[in-house]
Amino acid sequence: MNTEDRVILLDHGSGGLASQELIAKLFLPRLENPILSELGDSAVVDTPSGRLAFSTDSYVVDPIFFPGGDIGSLAVHGTINDVAMSGAYPLCLSLGLILEEGFSMKSLSRIAESIGNASRAAGVPVVAGDTKVVPRGKADGIFINTSGLGMIPEGVRISAARVEPGDGIILSGTIADHGVTILTRRAELSVQGDMRSDTMPLHTLVKKLVDAVPAGVHAMRDPTRGGLATVLCEVAGTARAAIEVDETAIGIRPGVQSACELLGLDPLYMANEGRCVVFVDARQLEAALDLMRSTEEGRESAIVGRVLDGPPGRVTLRTDIGGTRILRPLCGEPLPRIC
Amino acid sequence: MNTEDRVILLDHGSGGLASQELIAKLFLPRLENPILSELGDSAVVDTPSGRLAFSTDSYVVDPIFFPGGDIGSLAVHGTINDVAMSGAYPLCLSLGLILEEGFSMKSLSRIAESIGNASRAAGVPVVAGDTKVVPRGKADGIFINTSGLGMIPEGVRISAARVEPGDGIILSGTIADHGVTILTRRAELSVQGDMRSDTMPLHTLVKKLVDAVPAGVHAMRDPTRGGLATVLCEVAGTARAAIEVDETAIGIRPGVQSACELLGLDPLYMANEGRCVVFVDARQLEAALDLMRSTEEGRESAIVGRVLDGPPGRVTLRTDIGGTRILRPLCGEPLPRIC
Repeated sequence: MNTEDRVILLDHGSGGLASQELIAKLFLPRLENPILSELGDSAVVDTPSGRLAFSTDSYVVDPIFFPGGDIGSLAVHGTINDVAMSGAYPLCLSLGLILEEGFSMKSLSRIAESIGNASRAAGVPVVAGDTKVVPRGKADGIFINTSGLGMIPEGVRISAARVEPGDGIILSGTIADHGVTILTRRAELSVQGDMRSDTMPLHTLVKKLVDAVPAGVHAMRDPTRGGLATVLCEVAGTARAAIEVDETAIGIRPGVQSACELLGLDPLYMANEGRCVVFVDARQLEAALDLMRSTEEGRESAIVGRVLDGPPGRVTLRTDIGGTRILRPLCGEPLPRIC
Repeated sequence: MNTEDRVILLDHGSGGLASQELIAKLFLPRLENPILSELGDSAVVDTPSGRLAFSTDSYVVDPIFFPGGDIGSLAVHGTINDVAMSGAYPLCLSLGLILEEGFSMKSLSRIAESIGNASRAAGVPVVAGDTKVVPRGKADGIFINTSGLGMIPEGVRISAARVEPGDGIILSGTIADHGVTILTRRAELSVQGDMRSDTMPLHTLVKKLVDAVPAGVHAMRDPTRGGLATVLCEVAGTARAAIEVDETAIGIRPGVQSACELLGLDPLYMANEGRCVVFVDARQLEAALDLMRSTEEGRESAIVGRVLDGPPGRVTLRTDIGGTRILRPLCGEPLPRIC
């Protein structure tokens, strides 16, 4: 990438290959430090008194209100989940707002209400905030940044680098609900069925899981931008192992499936905001699955694949008609402003 | 404020009265928790293993490159300073970027370079990041959020509530350099003299100060949006005391002074990005002043006023011609997108 004569494309925000290239070539060399280079959902910061998880995410979703949530609840859940994916229990959030002059105070009140409700329901308070306003036409209504802080329990070491051949892969629910809900709402498509975003906080599920099988959980990821396929490719790359997943085991709601077929979108690449993918030691796989299924957030959990001693980074999907397909990281932005 | 039929105005991002009203009436009731309600530059989070400072700030400055810095170094310094104002030593930063489709990769590289340089120079690494891209016309080039995390040393308790009559007030340097530099650059005014932003990190100065007089430092603030006058009003309000400052003691560079006179702006309300106001126990005032003056960042430090047993929240300026003037919090946005 010759960065000097190019411009930012929507694809650089996709969470896929272009995003990864931007981070690897433009940012990492200039910000070089070992914690950032881990590129987990959350940074793990060693302090004299313990290990902290620290994560940040900006939310630019369009539309800002959608079935199942809004930009406010999404900003709370998304960052809680990023912190939780490191095995940490979230302590608190910060809230940074960029508002466009002329934005409706009624909408802002509704979003603040939603942030408050999501934060209270999760038990993770917003403890710091900042509001900036830019002139009309210089932003699009409201953008939200949340950063989150969590404590990692003693003995918990969760990292894609710990994933190894033999590990089982559990997915906590159906895929593509968030992405397809946003897309159909934005396109004003009338879709049958109760389609809604899966946005929800996963830290309680994660806490139960790491309490039950602390050493058995090797890695966790929430498949947001780039979807399940991109997350699997990232983990396979970091772990230098192959991954095989079984299409028939991956849950998808009928309405979401129909919408994807209608629109020519692959649900494996669509964003999720209340799902996690957990890589578990084979010996503790059944225990982890039972535990996840016993929770409200994870009641549709299923074993969707396993890690193999194959070519590093290769992800294979066994399709429902018995074929196989290689999954690659997302390339090209199918749907900007999904979160 | 009847919030339901109003819209966001630029003034809501000023850091002055409208911002305070928005926070107090719209956000606090919905996000209610004791840590947030402190409304310091940084939240102080008690954990089982110590006290953490946690702060967030979004940067929307226009222009993004200016004499003395750019949006990147500003985003590093600003959040380091917010964390430092609680007496904490900053550990790490997060970096959230919102980019507009079509933004120049060359400018982004230059900003990433500047963030890296500022972060390394300060010894505070960027450990977590996120990049979102919105379509052309939906943002203005680049917006940056940084959040910062710091550890508060044992025994350090810094809060505007600790300020009391008798305290002296030290200002670490001249005022209005940042605000006036941005304004003249934006207006393409040709101004004589070496005018440049004062953006710089203050955590090293703060560390030396709290090491030297840990119990003597009652409160610290960095007078960014809203300027020195607004910060004094906030502290006087929280401390339920009066404050008197001496205009002749407040340093201002001749070029900055001339520009303010020319443009009809009050330097007391202009933003600073490398200055702090320190409220110190009278018995340790001289020691604190000597220490601040011995640092590079604080070599122009001066005692500019004191806290009085007067009407709660009243801030009086003794003018250079012997009069007095009541200072009120900033009302009306003189200059949007200053940081």
